[in-house]
Amino acid sequence: MYNIFSHIPASTVTDEQFSELLSKPGLKIERIVSTGQSSPPDFWYDQAVGEWVLLIQGEAKLRLADEPAARHLKTGDFLNIPAHQKHRVDWTPADQITIWLAIHHA
Amino acid sequence: MYNIFSHIPASTVTDEQFSELLSKPGLKIERIVSTGQSSPPDFWYDQAVGEWVLLIQGEAKLRLADEPAARHLKTGDFLNIPAHQKHRVDWTPADQITIWLAIHHA
Repeated sequence: MYNIFSHIPASTVTDEQFSELLSKPGLKIERIVSTGQSSPPDFWYDQAVGEWVLLIQGEAKLRLADEPAARHLKTGDFLNIPAHQKHRVDWTPADQITIWLAIHHA
Repeated sequence: MYNIFSHIPASTVTDEQFSELLSKPGLKIERIVSTGQSSPPDFWYDQAVGEWVLLIQGEAKLRLADEPAARHLKTGDFLNIPAHQKHRVDWTPADQITIWLAIHHA
């Protein structure tokens, strides 16, 4: 793959898709394609490494455990989630293809 | 800044713009906004660290020294430029705002 919009599912009736774009010690660049998925109820990610995320396309509601409400991310929004910052995806739209770029950094 | 399309120049009559989005030892995430700039004649970048680049918007011609012709990058195209892979920017369009995301990784 050499384009971030390549090999996108034709419809949203599909599983979430993970593609590794670059991987080396301490760094992983990944594309995530969401089609309505969200984190399970009461599940929180608690990751050993930081994650910088950029919403390339679509929308998402991302909840950080130390904030009272989810952030509603739109196309182009980015943020860094430090290691061990608990977070979850409350919502992605079931009628849109949402593309994330995630930079996992140790 | 929290959106990759924020604080974009209103016209292309402006210098190239560099914004650091995240910086830590071994990693720098940077936005570059080009408005017609290219590398000086016969100049080649020769960088001590790798650079993964994604064209968020616009176009560019990127030449790798070991390839016979420049690659014509379009929106969404990405590639990794390993450390010490000589390269140059042959062209960015003077009538468009071109946005790069660059991940500099040691």
